Amino acid sequence: MFVSHLLTIPITTVFSVIDFGGVFAGALGGAFAARENKRYQYDFVGVMGLALISALGGGVARDVLLNHGPPLALVDTRYLLVAMVGGALGLTVSHKRAWLRRALVGVDALALGLFAVAGSARALAAGLSFLPALLLGVTTAVGGGSLRDVFSGRTPQVFERGEPYAIVAAAASVVFLTAEHWLGLGTAATALAVASSFILRLATMRFRWKTHLAR
Amino acid sequence: MFVSHLLTIPITTVFSVIDFGGVFAGALGGAFAARENKRYQYDFVGVMGLALISALGGGVARDVLLNHGPPLALVDTRYLLVAMVGGALGLTVSHKRAWLRRALVGVDALALGLFAVAGSARALAAGLSFLPALLLGVTTAVGGGSLRDVFSGRTPQVFERGEPYAIVAAAASVVFLTAEHWLGLGTAATALAVASSFILRLATMRFRWKTHLAR
Amino acid sequence: MFVSHLLTIPITTVFSVIDFGGVFAGALGGAFAARENKRYQYDFVGVMGLALISALGGGVARDVLLNHGPPLALVDTRYLLVAMVGGALGLTVSHKRAWLRRALVGVDALALGLFAVAGSARALAAGLSFLPALLLGVTTAVGGGSLRDVFSGRTPQVFERGEPYAIVAAAASVVFLTAEHWLGLGTAATALAVASSFILRLATMRFRWKTHLAR
Repeated sequence: MFVSHLLTIPITTVFSVIDFGGVFAGALGGAFAARENKRYQYDFVGVMGLALISALGGGVARDVLLNHGPPLALVDTRYLLVAMVGGALGLTVSHKRAWLRRALVGVDALALGLFAVAGSARALAAGLSFLPALLLGVTTAVGGGSLRDVFSGRTPQVFERGEPYAIVAAAASVVFLTAEHWLGLGTAATALAVASSFILRLATMRFRWKTHLAR
Repeated sequence: MFVSHLLTIPITTVFSVIDFGGVFAGALGGAFAARENKRYQYDFVGVMGLALISALGGGVARDVLLNHGPPLALVDTRYLLVAMVGGALGLTVSHKRAWLRRALVGVDALALGLFAVAGSARALAAGLSFLPALLLGVTTAVGGGSLRDVFSGRTPQVFERGEPYAIVAAAASVVFLTAEHWLGLGTAATALAVASSFILRLATMRFRWKTHLAR
Repeated sequence: MFVSHLLTIPITTVFSVIDFGGVFAGALGGAFAARENKRYQYDFVGVMGLALISALGGGVARDVLLNHGPPLALVDTRYLLVAMVGGALGLTVSHKRAWLRRALVGVDALALGLFAVAGSARALAAGLSFLPALLLGVTTAVGGGSLRDVFSGRTPQVFERGEPYAIVAAAASVVFLTAEHWLGLGTAATALAVASSFILRLATMRFRWKTHLAR
């Protein structure tokens, strides 16, 4: 009964849930990072500001680069609303609950691939070719966290050795762009990219894969 | 005689004076901050660069986000000229004169509200709704100083606990957007927003209101 | 034989070689800077990311500010390709070879003027006047390195006292804009600007001209 009901939910609704879930998780994570920052003493404005930058920065960077009207995050107010609720929650709830941290990582792992797909798909729609579409996919996925880091006076964490985060985003874009090219199916390509990058992200964490220092 | 003459000055001229005054004060303040910076040893280029970023960065960020032609600061050369004169002055005059500092704070307090109104008004004109218009108002008002901070390798000061600066800008935007909605009068709404945020800013300084650490 | 062949190469081809050479040198230099960074431990992603920002950041900043379609670096994939090859090379070859360092400085000195010209020319084409065109010329020339510095958590090096780098870029723009205005010859103005700024850059290095601390 329940499963058959689930099956009738259109896949685009699932994508939408992951999309807003990713924005929400980004804002919550951004707010937590601001509260835990040891170098600066952020107030309400700083926590909300860094939450919004974390949640929406990647998509805004993508849209500014594509130069195709105001960013989606400003036009479709739901993004801003979800980010503000996430930031407000991140301002108030305890950021030490282990289950919340784990849930955040899970939602983020799902959204990482979808954000990369959204960036690459928008780039293709703007007439760009494979390589720029790949770059914009990665930018969309890791841009929010990177801008938050820059606005916290430090280099983006995805640039430093450690977990292979940007590489997973690049993998999602490559899977999507390849599937899109050969299958020509937007939804299937998206699902394939999100699923494979989710599994890859979980694998990198499970097996503690780390990137090497380049020197 | 003098007063009656004053009364014949159109209110838009008053706004224009505040607008350019704010750009000038922003450039002067940016140049002073660069000269006083203890971490970096800025030269002529650094002082002028940070002066221009301080003075024009908020409006440029707003226009880049709205994606509606080149930024006003590049199209209307008067903005760039005023900012360059302010920067050049900030490079040469003593930055320790108390009266100059106080004048700067006063002009900045007036311009803060007008910048927020300019951001929100442009956002409305671009078809955005209340919440994005509020965000763009605050971005316009605090964006210049924030970008200067980021280009100085640190987090925006408006994100740190201390004087409630961004909140005053947000108040100006809310007053403007509410007045605009109910009264439908652009000039009256602007005057109301600028006056109320000016008073609020003076009050926060007079009573030493501070924001709290969020942790 | 060889010389006569050289003379038949159109000047625009020479400019194109300098242009891509500058992008290549920018990426190589950015990768080297990332590998030598003492504050952060960059991995493959960081080196490539900072290489791309160094190589393409100035032109992207210019195009985002001009608000005239997606950045050239995303539309014309050759830029991205050249930057990625430069970054990949910068990741692998030894960054201590003196001849390579010297070659980098030479190519960069040639490209500096051309980048400034490209920025000013695009600004003129967008209908902007002298002063904004000068600012965009300098932004294009020094923007990549500056953004790399900001993304490395520090102030742009061109803002600090030392070699007069941004001033040489400004000189190239002024020469170009003046020549363009009086001679009305795009190619001659470009050649004049690139040659004079190249000589000026070499002179500043040869005679160790330094800018003064502004305090």
